[in-house]
Amino acid sequence: MISDKMRKAVEGGSQIRAMFKAGKEMAAKFGEDNVYDFSLGNPYTPAPKEFADSIRKCLDEYENNSGFLHGYTDNEGYEDVRQAIADNLNSRFGSSYAARNIAMTVGAASGLNAILKTILNPGEEVIVLCPYFTEYRNYIANYDGVLKEVKCDEYILPDMEDLSAKITPKTKAVIVNTPNNPSGVIYADATMKALAKVLNDKQKEYGTDIYLISDEPYRELVYDGAVNPFVPDYYDNTIICYSFSKSLSIPGERMGYLAMSDKVSDIDMMIAAVSVAIRILGPVNAPSLIQRAVAGCLDAKTDVTYYDGNRKLLYDALTSYGFECIKPQGAFYLMVKAPIDEAEFVKKASSEYHILVVGTGSFGAPGYVRIAYCVSRERIERSLPSFKALAESCGLS
Amino acid sequence: MISDKMRKAVEGGSQIRAMFKAGKEMAAKFGEDNVYDFSLGNPYTPAPKEFADSIRKCLDEYENNSGFLHGYTDNEGYEDVRQAIADNLNSRFGSSYAARNIAMTVGAASGLNAILKTILNPGEEVIVLCPYFTEYRNYIANYDGVLKEVKCDEYILPDMEDLSAKITPKTKAVIVNTPNNPSGVIYADATMKALAKVLNDKQKEYGTDIYLISDEPYRELVYDGAVNPFVPDYYDNTIICYSFSKSLSIPGERMGYLAMSDKVSDIDMMIAAVSVAIRILGPVNAPSLIQRAVAGCLDAKTDVTYYDGNRKLLYDALTSYGFECIKPQGAFYLMVKAPIDEAEFVKKASSEYHILVVGTGSFGAPGYVRIAYCVSRERIERSLPSFKALAESCGLS
Repeated sequence: MISDKMRKAVEGGSQIRAMFKAGKEMAAKFGEDNVYDFSLGNPYTPAPKEFADSIRKCLDEYENNSGFLHGYTDNEGYEDVRQAIADNLNSRFGSSYAARNIAMTVGAASGLNAILKTILNPGEEVIVLCPYFTEYRNYIANYDGVLKEVKCDEYILPDMEDLSAKITPKTKAVIVNTPNNPSGVIYADATMKALAKVLNDKQKEYGTDIYLISDEPYRELVYDGAVNPFVPDYYDNTIICYSFSKSLSIPGERMGYLAMSDKVSDIDMMIAAVSVAIRILGPVNAPSLIQRAVAGCLDAKTDVTYYDGNRKLLYDALTSYGFECIKPQGAFYLMVKAPIDEAEFVKKASSEYHILVVGTGSFGAPGYVRIAYCVSRERIERSLPSFKALAESCGLS
Repeated sequence: MISDKMRKAVEGGSQIRAMFKAGKEMAAKFGEDNVYDFSLGNPYTPAPKEFADSIRKCLDEYENNSGFLHGYTDNEGYEDVRQAIADNLNSRFGSSYAARNIAMTVGAASGLNAILKTILNPGEEVIVLCPYFTEYRNYIANYDGVLKEVKCDEYILPDMEDLSAKITPKTKAVIVNTPNNPSGVIYADATMKALAKVLNDKQKEYGTDIYLISDEPYRELVYDGAVNPFVPDYYDNTIICYSFSKSLSIPGERMGYLAMSDKVSDIDMMIAAVSVAIRILGPVNAPSLIQRAVAGCLDAKTDVTYYDGNRKLLYDALTSYGFECIKPQGAFYLMVKAPIDEAEFVKKASSEYHILVVGTGSFGAPGYVRIAYCVSRERIERSLPSFKALAESCGLS
């Protein structure tokens, strides 16, 4: 007999993962060319050549007995790898990280789990800003935290009055995610300043620490010259949760890091506790070869212009068919307003048009669907007639 | 402010990890040749050449556009990798696993966390058999489970009467670990039969499911032709928790799997829940390249004879100095009776003789220390005069 909590989690399921599986089943049934799966953020563009080269270099050094490659590392990662990441951040953002401020994690998801385990007592609150990555719900529940949603304004940015109202003495953290999944929106300078002001005021009012967890898997995926805010510049109590999944197109490799500056409250204890959390939650350390491999190509990137092309093609086509879309400034998701009931729309798209998208009700944004356009250009091109027919069937054009 | 639980965990610390760090600091101070670190099970022997070759093959295929390598896999892993592991187990042990019965995990530690998250309601009990890997304590606490120790007999094997007495209607699982960390003992056929009988009787008595979690990172490390039991042959409700860390000497790569046969209670729900647990705990999936790499060399092994040589050298020397040792039949640990108070002995060995070992009080076996002999032969040879002097200073010879 499995636990009550897990039984509910299984029955609730992940819409995204269920779609991913359904997509594979539909592809087997109808042929891959006749199914348009936009459900999962599984990047289409290949990892840059530098990544494979970096792995090969590590293997060669190891075989020449000049490298330590597959052994346990410190729980927080190789020191030289953490130093390389600190240096890279410092040179790009003018920050002052040292190796000790970086902890390598098994992707951003493990980073989020490690930091939430580190800070949360049961019943303490974590604020998420709608729309938000639906998995935050599970990560917070893992540590018996209470998720509180802050609604968004008409620009799909956090409503500051609502944020202020939702913070209580039990608020331990706020999660910010820019570029945003599912909206693709980037938080502007003014938004970040307003957000920081609310948090600083509330810390003062309650005499508490409110950590700002900046979930940044899409940091390098920005378009039209947009500038994504460097969150620690706005708020001292910021913990960055980064992943190489999207920048290097290696989500399966599970590599990311936490960056906690010396300005973070209780920083020495925090660093020590994160290291313990990484160990006891099961990861022990982030995969050792891949740690070295990413450190060897920190400036490499997958082909972001490819996603930009997808973005334009899809946004222009869908708006021309009459869909109301939120124009993405980053990441690789497009939020589209469901012209009929969200669940009905998702079902109709899937069953009648073989278009797999995810409703954003579980992202705290009911009435929309999320299209992950990190797919081949061809898939988008092939899907357009079906999107057009779908629009028509919903009375849009 | 970090959470109360984590503050305690940090203050409690991991003796093993602390030793590992202290060893590196001492090596920097006194020179690597003058410090004898036996604290951590970080294998010395290199990964077999087949492993690097397998990685290179994966990279080549990927670059020829014929492989899918760095993307998300299903949460439970690539289907072909799971099938390969099932086939390998079936051919070696006559089992009947299918791909669906295998779930790839970020090492055994993540496997244990995934299964404990899957089965435990708060307050339910997990039985560990002394001596046991001290980290079980943390893994069980992660899900608010209650750890119950079963004492061992004079052969360092579980006391079946005590086991029977400790099982209650709240007992959800028993963790078995053979070859054992820290003792190196292998559970004999008779022991496994007796263990299974107790569990089956208690399942019947209470009408409950008691899962036997078989933690098997040392399965391939056996000496003198010893045969390690294949645990599912003895007890239907067995879940294997395997790791390639030691068999391939790749502990830093974090690769393992859970194997749950169709005979396990509630198996369909279990398989679904484990997949969810792997996702929401943060791993999402086991590292994708390394999944493929191990599948490409499932029969490869690191040089086990090297550890056997270490074992003999150390066991013979230490017993000749007057130390009382438990002769290991597998794994790469040697349990040595502390001739003085355990903590005093650990401190004396470290401060006076630069010998770093771990006391096994936290392994449920007070009065002993654990020597991890997965080190270079040279380190053992160099350490022997210090061990001799240590023995003398404790009045042994």
